[in-house]
Amino acid sequence: MRVQIILFHGMTLLDMVGPTQVWALLPGAELQYVAAAVGPVQTDCHVTISATHDYASAWRDPDILFIGGAGRPTLDAIANVDLIGFLADRGARAKWVTSVCTGALMLGAAGLLKGYRANSHWGTRDQLENFGAILSDERVCIDRNRATGGGITSGIDFGLTLAGIIAGDNVGRMLELLLEYNPAPPFGTGHPSIADRETLEHTRALLAAEYAPES
Amino acid sequence: MRVQIILFHGMTLLDMVGPTQVWALLPGAELQYVAAAVGPVQTDCHVTISATHDYASAWRDPDILFIGGAGRPTLDAIANVDLIGFLADRGARAKWVTSVCTGALMLGAAGLLKGYRANSHWGTRDQLENFGAILSDERVCIDRNRATGGGITSGIDFGLTLAGIIAGDNVGRMLELLLEYNPAPPFGTGHPSIADRETLEHTRALLAAEYAPES
Repeated sequence: MRVQIILFHGMTLLDMVGPTQVWALLPGAELQYVAAAVGPVQTDCHVTISATHDYASAWRDPDILFIGGAGRPTLDAIANVDLIGFLADRGARAKWVTSVCTGALMLGAAGLLKGYRANSHWGTRDQLENFGAILSDERVCIDRNRATGGGITSGIDFGLTLAGIIAGDNVGRMLELLLEYNPAPPFGTGHPSIADRETLEHTRALLAAEYAPES
Repeated sequence: MRVQIILFHGMTLLDMVGPTQVWALLPGAELQYVAAAVGPVQTDCHVTISATHDYASAWRDPDILFIGGAGRPTLDAIANVDLIGFLADRGARAKWVTSVCTGALMLGAAGLLKGYRANSHWGTRDQLENFGAILSDERVCIDRNRATGGGITSGIDFGLTLAGIIAGDNVGRMLELLLEYNPAPPFGTGHPSIADRETLEHTRALLAAEYAPES
């Protein structure tokens, strides 16, 4: 199974690492990290991660094409014609076209979600309509060969779900145990539908500031 | 808040990225990635991440000292006198001495868990007794200024819990919403106490093979 993971400047590291960690443990999986150039790519955790391939040397027909999201750097990514062109090209041949968080906006910008149900981070989901997607609020949204997760931490549920579909539920069950995925969120505020009003208002304000036009 | 994150060859990437992603979003947090040398460090996801500091240039008194775990490379890490010596030195002054997964074995090897309750990945927890720790099966185990998480994905619960203690519960609630941490494990097998017998037996066999002596 050939997994092609796209890196870009300012990416939210956990969006990518959640599913990648699951797939890296799959027997027979090969992982390829692709950016405009081989070498370090800055993430939002003040650390760089290294692309192993550039657009020219990346597999032409991966089994899984995957891109995670970001905060404000999402705006640059969806306007980056090289990145979006690469996604459109590989997405036309990949067996699975997938994303977590605002990575869905990049798939959308590449024309890959037209007529498909899709999800993104709860704070950005509505924007998927601009790309012809049908909005979904499923934490792991699968429509034919498109698989799009919700925000950041949903990548673990998303990665395990896809691993189960591809490698079988018995493998999925083992991976979930190996990853000790028996979560216990300390605050119980992890979705707008369960958060208290004050937390929701403050977090909405924070997201609005993140995406506000520069003055 | 100065967070010192230790990198080592073969590390399990998600162990580190779970809490790091939480802390990177904390207002005023500074993150430093430390290894024997500045530059790329291989992870278990077939990708490298770059240390920003070496042992000599790393903060002498971090607020949080953190190390994640690994599979088999754990054995090399606990036998690495430079790494363990560095942990012992910084651990003596850090406000918080912390780990996820088998990172606890490294803290133990550095003498930092003697007489403290601590946890590790469920498959390796028993080994903490060799280092004088008191075994705990709490997903996030806090005893005075020692905070040790369980296996791999526990790092998100661990990171959020510590963020709440340090920055206040209102910040913790916002981060949990921002990270959309409303988990939905697809298989319900994420801990030995809830996994079916076949999944548990196969996963135990897989871990035994991972840690078996080389022939």
